[in-house]
Order: sequence, then structure tokens, then C-alpha cells
Amino acid sequence: MPPLLPSTWLQLQRSVRFGDTDAAGVMHFYQLLRWCHEAYEESLESFGLPAASVFPRPEWAGDSPAVALPIVYCQAEFRRPLLTGDLLHISLRPEALGPEAFEVRYSFEREGQPVAHGLTRHLAIAASGRQPCALPEGIRRWLEASGLGEGVRPL
Amino acid sequence: MPPLLPSTWLQLQRSVRFGDTDAAGVMHFYQLLRWCHEAYEESLESFGLPAASVFPRPEWAGDSPAVALPIVYCQAEFRRPLLTGDLLHISLRPEALGPEAFEVRYSFEREGQPVAHGLTRHLAIAASGRQPCALPEGIRRWLEASGLGEGVRPL
Amino acid sequence: MPPLLPSTWLQLQRSVRFGDTDAAGVMHFYQLLRWCHEAYEESLESFGLPAASVFPRPEWAGDSPAVALPIVYCQAEFRRPLLTGDLLHISLRPEALGPEAFEVRYSFEREGQPVAHGLTRHLAIAASGRQPCALPEGIRRWLEASGLGEGVRPL
Amino acid sequence: MPPLLPSTWLQLQRSVRFGDTDAAGVMHFYQLLRWCHEAYEESLESFGLPAASVFPRPEWAGDSPAVALPIVYCQAEFRRPLLTGDLLHISLRPEALGPEAFEVRYSFEREGQPVAHGLTRHLAIAASGRQPCALPEGIRRWLEASGLGEGVRPL
Repeated sequence: MPPLLPSTWLQLQRSVRFGDTDAAGVMHFYQLLRWCHEAYEESLESFGLPAASVFPRPEWAGDSPAVALPIVYCQAEFRRPLLTGDLLHISLRPEALGPEAFEVRYSFEREGQPVAHGLTRHLAIAASGRQPCALPEGIRRWLEASGLGEGVRPL
Repeated sequence: MPPLLPSTWLQLQRSVRFGDTDAAGVMHFYQLLRWCHEAYEESLESFGLPAASVFPRPEWAGDSPAVALPIVYCQAEFRRPLLTGDLLHISLRPEALGPEAFEVRYSFEREGQPVAHGLTRHLAIAASGRQPCALPEGIRRWLEASGLGEGVRPL
Repeated sequence: MPPLLPSTWLQLQRSVRFGDTDAAGVMHFYQLLRWCHEAYEESLESFGLPAASVFPRPEWAGDSPAVALPIVYCQAEFRRPLLTGDLLHISLRPEALGPEAFEVRYSFEREGQPVAHGLTRHLAIAASGRQPCALPEGIRRWLEASGLGEGVRPL
Repeated sequence: MPPLLPSTWLQLQRSVRFGDTDAAGVMHFYQLLRWCHEAYEESLESFGLPAASVFPRPEWAGDSPAVALPIVYCQAEFRRPLLTGDLLHISLRPEALGPEAFEVRYSFEREGQPVAHGLTRHLAIAASGRQPCALPEGIRRWLEASGLGEGVRPL
């Protein structure tokens, strides 16, 4: 049974690590999109969807999900430089875009101040034929449950 | 003296490497933004701007440029899955956005077919005080020269 | 005041993320060394050494530590393929190598089974002149305290 | 027909990119192991082995090779700090380790000075059952041809 409050799977945190920075002394830009995807994975897991039910695995490890969810678009906006050791709070806002697609918006805050935003847009496709298809049932539940707690979501 | 034809610094190529892929068997999305930045660096270099004149370095290695060019926004669009070993042609389209900012659009093609697009937007700031400032002279020359060969640029 | 039991800063965990895998469906090898460094950073932080006291930062953000701790050698051994979503337990074993150097050994386990090992070796150097120097006091305390709990450490 | 001189597939080069550095202003250590693997891929390609004959691909893209070559061990040694824009010359020295394994040694030089070394050790396994097996024929040819030009290899 999934947790009842979106805050448990839509409010995450992480620290900036030394390897995320570049010679300007601050986070190198594309690392933010890695953090977005890792937050998305952590959110699904906290909601109760194990990785093996969403992401492909090698044949010898068992069946992969029938539906893949590749990213077809992403963007990020950088407001403040991020330093090694900075603790970031990440708020996710997943939303369905019709029956075959969804997007996730990610807000990053440090000490209550917005520092960056990210967005990933995903299309459901059949893992074999790669034609668009309906979103898997688990993802639909996650999207729906995520929309129920509107009031608690920071923007 | 910089090369005369934009095609020499705006038309690049690279191969997809195994470590760029994920368990779905195709390029993992944020790697494309790494490729964009590396193409931007290679373009500046081919145009005649050495890395040391654009990117910060540690104090013991000599003076860093007075102006930093952090990315304030980026986006990417993915049209086709990219496989290990795929040879990609990258076209850059740099453009000034007023006196203090510029953007670069990146088109990725495989065998003449568009497979992905990227965009990075950069703001010039004083490396010390971090307030916005005029674009450095070398970058202005690169932007200007890049705009002269419009005819040869694929879109 | 630092925590009293090494287990609180030498026993960590993390999950394998989708972007850590490659087209073989398993973790791409060099990601393990990223995890090692991130575990080292997390260990220092949990012990009570903030990142700003160990890792360099840009000039505008305040003074960097006088001593840098670059890695001069690293190695990793891979025993089992790691899949997206796998939960890993990481045990760190830091050890001084004379007054100017130290190493950290990292053991990765999944469900009680060893799956990989890592090692990073660090040399203390003056951040400005880059000549070898004594280990910083905080790192010395971390090394010493880490050696006190020998009994509890898995190998 | 493969090129006749090992120098054409064992002598490579690459530039250090901004995203490869960290807040200390120099290459972040594990990037070197990424460069090693990319050099290995480029070497195979230059020798005449297409990526699709060595690395796995998704099922929809055609058959994957029957044999996988996962890395079971790697190491790296760092002699000099590497800066954004540094041009590196990479020498590869592949060697068979019995019928089921091989290793590649990588020497990195900048302006004729050794700056780093890397090593990756690979085990041949059946892609399906994952039991050790004989090295694929293409890899055997590459290993053999690489050993013919001993005289020209810098160490």
C-alpha cells in the first residue's frame, strides 16, 4: 500500500557533491538533469513502484516492463550557483499530458530560496515496437496520487 | 588568425560511446547536454579562442578570465534513440541576446536525419562580483563570425 | 561534537540509478568510483566536517581550505552486475598512510553479498604551491576515530 | 581490411573539457576512467571492429554480440593536474590474459610528459548465461595485431 501523503514521495533532498562542480567552483549545469532523473526514480520507489517494474533490465535478470518511458524533452533553469555540500530540497510536480505522456517539474531550493528548476517530459512507448502506447498502470496511479495534495506543494 | 569559414568551427562530429547509454540500450538523455557543452568548447577552440581565455582555472595555474559565462537555461529535444557507435554530425548556431548574453543552438544528425536538438543560454558576469557585464571580446568575435555564413547552415 | 560510533559515518547506503547503467543493462564501471567519492564526502559530513572545510570553493564564496587532498591513485574490483534499483550497503575503511597521505577502502554489498570494492588514495598538498604537506587536523581526527571501531567493520 | 600499423589505432588524443573538471580547477579523478573506456572503443573502431559487433544494443535494433566483455577490475594513477583545454596523447597497450580475459593499459601524456595511467581488465562471458567463455574472434585479432608493433609504443 502506497503512502498516503504526496509529501512523502514528492519532497526529496540531496547534497551537492564535489564531482558535480566544475572549475568555476559551482555545479556544472547538466548535473541538475541527472538529479532530476534520480529524484524521479526515488519518487516512484517511495510511492511503491520498484525500479524493476518501470525500468528495463538485462534479459538474464528477468522480464523488462512492456512499456518504456523515454524522455522526449527536458529543460532546466539556473538561478543561483550551487556549491559543494549545499543541501537542496527538491519538490516534484508530476502531471499527465494525455493518455500517452507525462511531465515532471522539479523545483530546487536551498535554505528556502529557489535555486533551480528542471523539467522532463516522457512518452510511453511499447518496449518492443517503439510505437506510442498508454501509460502503464503504476505510473497512472503515481500521477493521480501526486495531484491530490495540491495544497501542500511549494511552487 | 581565425579560420574564414564558419563551417570549420560550427560543423562538428562525435560518436556515441557505450558509457553514454543506459539499460534501455540507448543514449541516456542528459549526456546530450554534455555533448552540447563539449561542442561549444571545441567550436571556440577551432575558431581560435584557447580554453584558458574563456574558462576559469585554478589560481596556481595563472589568471582566470575576468568574465564567466555560466549557463542560465538549457533545453533538449530527443527525436530518435541513439545507439553505441552512432556517428553524429553537430551543427552549432550561436547568437547574441543583447550585450550581456548569448545562446547556442545545437542540431544533431545521423546519416542526414535530425535526431536531437539542444540549446544553452549563457550570461556574462564578472568572475569576482558576479554582476552581469558585457560579453568578452573573443566571444563577440565568435558570435559575429558565426553569423556570417548563414547560407551554409543546415537547420 | 562528532558522533561516537564509527558505524554512523562509515556505514552508508545508496541505490543504483538508471543513469548509472549502460546498454548491457548493468552499472557502467566508472560510476562505482563516483559512488566511492560521494561516500567519502558523506562520511566526512556525518562525522562533523562540513564540505567547506575540506573542498575548495570559488573565491567569491569565501576562503578555500589551505590544504587540498587530490586522489593520486584509485582502483575498483567488480564482482557482480548491479541493476537499476539495487540497494547497496557501503562500508568505508579509511587509513592514514604516513603524515601526508591516506587511503579509503570501500566495500559494496547487496543483500549481504559483496558485489564490488573500491579504493582511493589521497595526498595532502598546499592548495597554493601544491607541495606535499601534513594532513589537515579534521581529516586526522576522522582517520583516528575511524580506526577505533575495528570490531564492527565488515571486510 | 584493418590498418597495418598499430599506431593508427593505439595512439589517440583528446582534450580535457570544462565539465571534466571540479572546483579544485582540475580534472575530477574518475573522468580518466571514462576516457580510458572511450579510447578503448575508439581503438576497436579504428582497427575495424564496429561498435555493434562488440557492445550490446537493444533488442529492437538487432542482435547483440553473443559475448559480453565486462570490466572486472580497473585502476588509475594521477601524476599531474589536468586543466580545461589540455591536449592529451593516449597510448593503449592491450594484452590477452589467457583465452577468456584481456587488459588494456592506457598512458596519458601532455606535451611529451606522462600525466596519468589507467588500466581496465575485461572478462569474456556469454551474454545470456554469464559464464566465462572464449574471447570473441575480433577482439583476439585486435589483441594480436596490437602486439606486433611493440617497437613504436611509448611506455
